[in-house]
Amino acid sequence: STASSSGEEQQKFEEELIPPDNFNMVSNWVYRSSFPKKKNFAFLKKLGLKSILTLILEEYPEQNMKFLKANDIKFFQFEIAGNKEPFCHIPEDKICAALAVILDRRNHPILIHCNKGKHRTGCLIGCLRKLQRWTYTSIFDEYRRFSHPKSRSMDQQFIELFDVSQVWKLIDRNYVPNWDVLGCPW
Amino acid sequence: STASSSGEEQQKFEEELIPPDNFNMVSNWVYRSSFPKKKNFAFLKKLGLKSILTLILEEYPEQNMKFLKANDIKFFQFEIAGNKEPFCHIPEDKICAALAVILDRRNHPILIHCNKGKHRTGCLIGCLRKLQRWTYTSIFDEYRRFSHPKSRSMDQQFIELFDVSQVWKLIDRNYVPNWDVLGCPW
Repeated sequence: STASSSGEEQQKFEEELIPPDNFNMVSNWVYRSSFPKKKNFAFLKKLGLKSILTLILEEYPEQNMKFLKANDIKFFQFEIAGNKEPFCHIPEDKICAALAVILDRRNHPILIHCNKGKHRTGCLIGCLRKLQRWTYTSIFDEYRRFSHPKSRSMDQQFIELFDVSQVWKLIDRNYVPNWDVLGCPW
Repeated sequence: STASSSGEEQQKFEEELIPPDNFNMVSNWVYRSSFPKKKNFAFLKKLGLKSILTLILEEYPEQNMKFLKANDIKFFQFEIAGNKEPFCHIPEDKICAALAVILDRRNHPILIHCNKGKHRTGCLIGCLRKLQRWTYTSIFDEYRRFSHPKSRSMDQQFIELFDVSQVWKLIDRNYVPNWDVLGCPW
């Protein structure tokens, strides 16, 4: 933050930053949001991201790929379909794999996103909160805060039934983030 | 996280943590919530708080004071009345003083709270986001996410009219947190 009186610096300082919709900090160095668009890139750059983890089914757009390359950001994709229909299940193995990425501090700072940042991201964060030993009341409050007004009870059911014990096996304990609220079983 | 097979340790591990209502991470080492109750203390302990900043008018309850003492937590109170009535203004000087506390990393980790964690806390965080150069769209989205379904346009107006330039004068630049998203004018 050294002072500079150049016009360019001044302009840069005055530039507004546009977080993606539904942007929020989940924990130290872990962020969540809706799908980041070009107008959000200046904001995201400030976060100094090392990784982006997406849960969308579709191929990642060209301009987002360019942003990743230009900023040396690792890319993780775990394809999950929305939990809209009663026969459409969220695959537990993909949620587990995604949690293992999030719980490896070599990937931090990390941004997690799907399309709206509501349902798939909400399920993943809900499972993370279970690992952090939050009560269901708190987990569901948070889920609904970001999915409102389209909260799905199927998603909350998924979170409730999700078995956290299977996650720890996938995690390298040498790189678990230094969160006091993490209830690692070792 | 060293392993322990004692029953006591096991019980401790299984204990559920109850964040206060409306709990959220604002930025690294900065948290917000509703009024913390006794059942939330185990959760708050995990955050390793150095300070608590409250915006309530009332005297701080005995059991909360005890929690502060037992955990060596600094206490800041800036008394602000809710912005309910058209003639009830939020005092800008108190918001400025509160922002100066938040923007001093010697006070981190810090928890900010009022009663519901909706309106007064929402105004303060909104002003913080202005310092971080967020667009009004993002600031108001966040304000509404935490004040829903009782969002107040008076609060949003306060945030919009708040003059951030007066805050920088109160801030010791040697202790400004290392947030890349902070738009310090020096």
